[in-house]
Order: sequence, then structure tokens, then C-alpha cells
Amino acid sequence: MYRHDTIAAISTPVGEGGIGIVRVSGPDVLPLVRQVIRRSTDGDFESHRFYYGMLIDPLCGDAVDEVLAVVMKKPHSYTREDVLEIQCHGGYLVTRRVLDVVLGCGVRLAEPGEFTRRAFLNGRIDLVQAEAVIELIRSKTETSLALARHQYEGRLSSQLHQVRDSVRYVLALLEAFVDFPEEEIDPVHYRDIDSTARSALQLVGDLIAGFAEGKVLRDGVSVLIAGKPNVGKSSLLNTLVQEKRAIVTSIPGTTRDIIEEVVSVRGLPVKVLDTAGVRSTSDPVEREGVQRALERIPLADLILLILDRSRPLDEDDRLLFEAVAGHRYLVVLNKVDQSPCLELPACLNGAEVVSISTLTGEGIDALREAIFSQFMLGKAVDSREYVVVSQVRHRDALLRAERHLKQFLDNLDAGFAPELLSVDLRDVLGALGEVTGETTPDDVLDIIFQRFCIGK
Amino acid sequence: MYRHDTIAAISTPVGEGGIGIVRVSGPDVLPLVRQVIRRSTDGDFESHRFYYGMLIDPLCGDAVDEVLAVVMKKPHSYTREDVLEIQCHGGYLVTRRVLDVVLGCGVRLAEPGEFTRRAFLNGRIDLVQAEAVIELIRSKTETSLALARHQYEGRLSSQLHQVRDSVRYVLALLEAFVDFPEEEIDPVHYRDIDSTARSALQLVGDLIAGFAEGKVLRDGVSVLIAGKPNVGKSSLLNTLVQEKRAIVTSIPGTTRDIIEEVVSVRGLPVKVLDTAGVRSTSDPVEREGVQRALERIPLADLILLILDRSRPLDEDDRLLFEAVAGHRYLVVLNKVDQSPCLELPACLNGAEVVSISTLTGEGIDALREAIFSQFMLGKAVDSREYVVVSQVRHRDALLRAERHLKQFLDNLDAGFAPELLSVDLRDVLGALGEVTGETTPDDVLDIIFQRFCIGK
Repeated sequence: MYRHDTIAAISTPVGEGGIGIVRVSGPDVLPLVRQVIRRSTDGDFESHRFYYGMLIDPLCGDAVDEVLAVVMKKPHSYTREDVLEIQCHGGYLVTRRVLDVVLGCGVRLAEPGEFTRRAFLNGRIDLVQAEAVIELIRSKTETSLALARHQYEGRLSSQLHQVRDSVRYVLALLEAFVDFPEEEIDPVHYRDIDSTARSALQLVGDLIAGFAEGKVLRDGVSVLIAGKPNVGKSSLLNTLVQEKRAIVTSIPGTTRDIIEEVVSVRGLPVKVLDTAGVRSTSDPVEREGVQRALERIPLADLILLILDRSRPLDEDDRLLFEAVAGHRYLVVLNKVDQSPCLELPACLNGAEVVSISTLTGEGIDALREAIFSQFMLGKAVDSREYVVVSQVRHRDALLRAERHLKQFLDNLDAGFAPELLSVDLRDVLGALGEVTGETTPDDVLDIIFQRFCIGK
Repeated sequence: MYRHDTIAAISTPVGEGGIGIVRVSGPDVLPLVRQVIRRSTDGDFESHRFYYGMLIDPLCGDAVDEVLAVVMKKPHSYTREDVLEIQCHGGYLVTRRVLDVVLGCGVRLAEPGEFTRRAFLNGRIDLVQAEAVIELIRSKTETSLALARHQYEGRLSSQLHQVRDSVRYVLALLEAFVDFPEEEIDPVHYRDIDSTARSALQLVGDLIAGFAEGKVLRDGVSVLIAGKPNVGKSSLLNTLVQEKRAIVTSIPGTTRDIIEEVVSVRGLPVKVLDTAGVRSTSDPVEREGVQRALERIPLADLILLILDRSRPLDEDDRLLFEAVAGHRYLVVLNKVDQSPCLELPACLNGAEVVSISTLTGEGIDALREAIFSQFMLGKAVDSREYVVVSQVRHRDALLRAERHLKQFLDNLDAGFAPELLSVDLRDVLGALGEVTGETTPDDVLDIIFQRFCIGK
């Protein structure tokens, strides 16, 4: 559903900053800009030219802010509609006031992602590219950024088009036999159809196979550091974070007891959570913290169970082994720079053991490697070449395409008539079209664009 | 100290948003833009024209992002230098990568406020206006925004210029007598000098007198809601916050125990803090919360001591009266919709009492009025006309100007020689010049611009 009205939103992040941008798109842009921007000289607003002026509230005549305004006339704009960008002073209230003036002129507040949705509906980008826009914005590591950029540039789209073109080619070949139902498909064409469909199936299979890793690369994983007090949990967090280039961003803790940092481990976004030291205690405040730490264990993708190798295993350590049983964990022996005094329990359930020293830095690289290979199966990531499917929606549609391609090949093998064979191929095209947006239902589009921020 | 190099910074707020802007200013802008922006067509970058292209990292040749670039050639730019703005996809990492490419070309990362500092040093705005820029960005209410806008538009500057011009006029008159030291100042000129200096003194005095209110209007005040459990503390916070137009912003609580909201009370930014219910208790966790609530009392500008009028006064209420003694507080009697059952203690130390019902909304307007008049002395604020001094730096310099003007008038009265009289007047001009930036020392400028965000 595409409404041809004019929409506006604040397109810069919310917060204090030097510059705020209010973006407007739609048929009323040109009358609007003449109404709200007062320049020192007269004349039309040329497309793609920056004009300095005052933003005026036409309802009361007040000057609201000193602004720079630029009109981008269709189709040379982000949405392929007439677009106005108003650059004002940054900050919550100024930008909000500028938006209010625009909305006061009868413009509608844009829904999340509505600018990008219009870019898609007007054919500037396909749906896979549109979805990449929000990934570009959300990226937390260089690798996830590269994946999003490749998707935005159309690398995934072009692989999907390759599959689509193969299927269309096969359909066209079959078409020739539909009019002559009594004839069999001759061996030359049969081989061509069979091999084209098989290579399409191969490509679809490869894309599906990359999904798990694509998802991990995009969304990252959560790693919980657990251990009794004073085994070096915070030191480990600091060590993982302190290498400047590894720091991505700090997430303010949702509680005082758990500290979260996002770090990049060989390109993989890893949210590291430091928890309160776990031990039996009678102090009610401390017990609360311990309880919280234990509750987080089942929610993490991986637990680093950290032990102090210079002290013997005790009841508190055993408590932790019990807590992590059944979850994915690594045993991290800290303080290997001191003389060893700890014996690991016999039954580790095959958990990997990494020895480190947060004091000397020994073993930290090995720990990073161990974390990475827990998720990436030891495969190196060359983000420059990677084309992956990272979204469940794409994976599900590709699984459908795969199923119909296989069915088609089975039916071909069984000697089905061309008009019956083509049914599955049309289902493949439908599934591919849902990914690229050619045949995506409106309610799915609604869900996709609701993930966007307002103003994009 | 003004370095003539080229600087760059991210000028949009940090966070997820549709658009990010990297701003560059200085002599290397034109060579830089040709180096990093790849367009589909050749040609020069015209001033104030938006160009669509790819941002290229010249070190590796990689395309980093699809961008819009605009060059604003001096002096028609924010800094009066050549300025380049690169609009890229919003989001932490994309914008950061674009900045990195620019910095990789030998451009220096801008210090906080350095763009505005250059605008000031190049004479586009004076220092009072430059300081208004950060107030514009930080504004939390319409009133503080209006104050900042007026200051940015130069209303305070023009009043300061009026004082300066008067002082200069008096100096010029005195000058005529310096060459004839044996002559007395004739009565006509004496009266002119005296009355001009007195009206300047009056204006300076008015500006100083407005300082307290100006500061409160700009920075707002903190109001703490205190009371025993279940007297309606959270309901009161919600009532103050729920009127949609009053909500300004939510500040994430620094602790789990204290909830903060900023609301606008007749244009005054008020940070309302809700605390844990205060009562004697043996539960250690609850005692911790009570302790925190009590510790916040001396830090608040005003305490709302809330009592339940439908229950008799008890030990916990008395505990609170003890805690607020010596601080500024209002007594708020809640639940006036129920039958009264409470007698106030005899000694309220003159504290005002306001009766409300958070259930029916009765008395809430009166409470707002009472809060407002605690700070604004009952004076209505017409933000459209208000010119106030809201910064300590301005007030201090104005106090100095006032002192020297008074000294001048005393000396004039005592018949001092013109060359002696002019000493104080020059000090007045010096003090005024410090405010507007004509004579502000570099270290003071450093302090002023350090308050800015990066990228402004």
C-alpha cells in the first residue's frame, strides 16, 4: 500500500549534536519549502542546491531556527520523490520544533522506514537492499558492516537474480514443449534443463548453508563471564575490551550488577557480560547479585567459566560447574603466571579448557580463537568476499525455493509433462520474488519496515 | 590561538539514525573532496550544490558508503572557511568509517566546539552568540530554547553593545578635556556624561538582576518527592508527567531506586525525582533504599514532602519532617478526595501547604504554581521578550563592569581629572569585551568551547 502523501521525520539520531536534519518527501515539498523557508534573496529553489535561511512557522510568523535547506527534485532523490532536507541546530528540542512546523503545514509524520519503503516501492532499490539499509545503521563491527554494505550494493540480489534467470531460462525451454504435449523433451534440451536447474539448486543450497554464520556475524553472540569472587572476571572483561581497536560500544548496564561490553572477536560481534561473583553467602544483598548471575547463564550463547588456577577447587567452583551443566561453556583457567594448585573435576563433559593470565596477557589470543570457533567452525571470514544470507525471512523463502527446485528435478526425472513441471518452477520464482520484494505481501513489508528507525 | 589547518568531526548525534554527517572545515577541503568523492560525472564541485557519489578510501580504493556531498566555499559557510559536509548512512560504525577516511587524508579531528570557535574567531558571530549555540542544542524546554535563540540572535549582545556604546561616548567626551587638564568639565557635558553613565549602570544592573532567574530557566531545578510508602509519590510523579505536553524527556535512572523525569512547569525545566518510601524498617535491602532517599534530600532544590491526609500523622512522617528541616520544602497533602484524618505538626517553619488528589487531579495546578513561584518569585515569563543573563561567566563580568561604572560615577562626583576618570571606563569596556569575546583570553575560550559537543 503506497500512499502518495507528503511525509516528514527527524532523520538524525536523537540526542545532542551539531546538526539535526528534518527530511520531507512527497508531492507537497515545493509549496512547503516556499512557505517555511525565508531567504534573503528571492527566486526558485533549484534542485540539489543548499540555501541558507530562517525557518518560519507560518502559523505565527515566528522565526524558529537558522537553517540550511536543500530540495532534491524527483527522481534524483533517496525516495525518487521530491525531497526536502532541512538542516537545523542539533539537539532534542530544536529539531523537534522544526519538525513541528513542517507537520503544522499538513505534512504527515513518517512511519519507521517509510522513506526507504518509498525508495523500494519506486524501484530505486529492491527489498533485499532496503533491508540492508537498517543493517548498515545497526552494524556493530566491521564484518557486519561489510555484510550489510555488500547486501546494499546488491551482491545478494545479484546471486538471487542469477537463480531467477536460470529458472526463467528453464521455464522458457519448457514452454516450447507445452504446445506439443505429445512430444518428449529431446535429450539435448533435457540435459540443458537438468544442469541449469541443478546449478540453481546448488547456489540456493550454498546461500542457505551460509545462513547460520551470516546470522551470527550480523547479530553477534552473547558471552557470559561467570566465576566465584576474585578469580579475575572483571580483569578478563577489561582485557578483552582494552585493546582499543576491539572496543565497539558500551551498553549501559540494565542493572548495577551486570556489566556489558560489545567487542569484536575476529570480526564477530561479541557482547561480553560480567556478572557478580558467585558464592554461597548469607548476605541478602550479595545473594541477590549471585541469583541474578545464575539466572543469566541459560540466556547466554556461551559461558566462560573462569577458575583461579593458583587456588584449589572449592565448593563455590563446584556450584558453578553445576550451574553451567547442559549449557555451552569454556573453562578458563586464570592466573597461569602463578604456581598451579588446582585440579579440574574429572567430568568436564568435553568442555574446552583455555589457560590464560589476565596479568601477562598470556593465552588471551587463544581464548579469542576458542570463542570464535565455537560459532564459526574454524572458518576464516574474509568479509570482502562474503555474500551471506543473514535474515530468517530470506532463509525461509530460500528453503521454499530449494524444496520446489528439488521437486522439479524429481518430476523431471519421473518424466512429468512440461506444464506440470513448470508449476514448481513458478513457485521457485514466487519464493525468490518474496525475498527481492517483487511478490512480497504488504503485511510482510509492514513487518520489515517496522524494524527501521523513524526518519530512514 | 587559531590554527589554520583542516578539521573534521561527526556533526550528528551519536546513535542510530537515518542520516549521519561528517563535517570538514579548512583550506584542504577542495583537494580533499576531489580525493574522496567519486561521482558518475566529472567536473568541479560548485559551492552549495549537493552531489551524489561514493565515498572512496584513497588508501585502499574501497568504496565505503553511498553519500551526498556538499561544499560551501568561504566565506559563505558556518565557519567562514571552506566547508565540506558528507551525508552518509546513519549509525555508529558507518559514520565513524567515513570520518576515518577523512582523517586518513591528513585532516585533524576537531576539538569540541571548534567549528563554532572558528565561526567566532572569523567574526561571523560574537562570543555570546557562540555560547548560545550549545544552549540551543542542550535546551530541554521551550523557555530555555527561546532564551538561547534570543541570545543566538544577538539580543543580549545588542544590550551589551548599547552599554559599550554609552561608555565609549562618555570616553570620547572626556577625551576632549584630557588635552586641557586645567579646564573643568563644563556643566552641559558633565550632565551628559553623568546621565549616560547612569543609564548604562541601570542597564547593567537590570541584566545582573535577571541572572538568578535566567540560570533557573536555563538549567532548571530538581524537585524531590519524599514520603513514606503508599502516600502517592509515584502517582504524583505520573500526574506531573502524564500531561503529554509537559513531558520533555526521560532520563534513565542512575540507580534502580530513584526515578527521574524532566517536566516543564510553566516553562521552567523541572527534574522530578521519585524516591523509595521512607520508613523505619529492619529489612536491609529496603533500609538501603530509604538511606538513598534521605541522602538525596540535601541535593534537591526543593522537596515535596507528601503526606496522606486520610491517615493520622505517624512516626515515619515525623522522621521525614526531621529530614527536610533546614531545606526548602513544600508540604503536599494527598488524598483530599477522602475524609481528612491528619493533623499537621505545629511547627512547619513557614512551609507552604498544598492540598491535592492524584486521583481526581484536584490541586495539581496549584501545586505547579507553588513550585514555579518558589523559584520565579511569582513573575510570569514571557519568553518572547525575555533577554536574560544566564551564565555565571557573563554575570561575573557584568558585576565587574558595574563596580567600575559605580567607581567612575563616584570619581566624577569627586571631581577627578578626566584621564583618571577614563581608567574605570576602560575597565568597563574590558569587562564587556570579555563577555562578547573581543578581549576574552585564550584560556577562557578553551573552557567555553570545551563545553561543546564534538562536531559543532
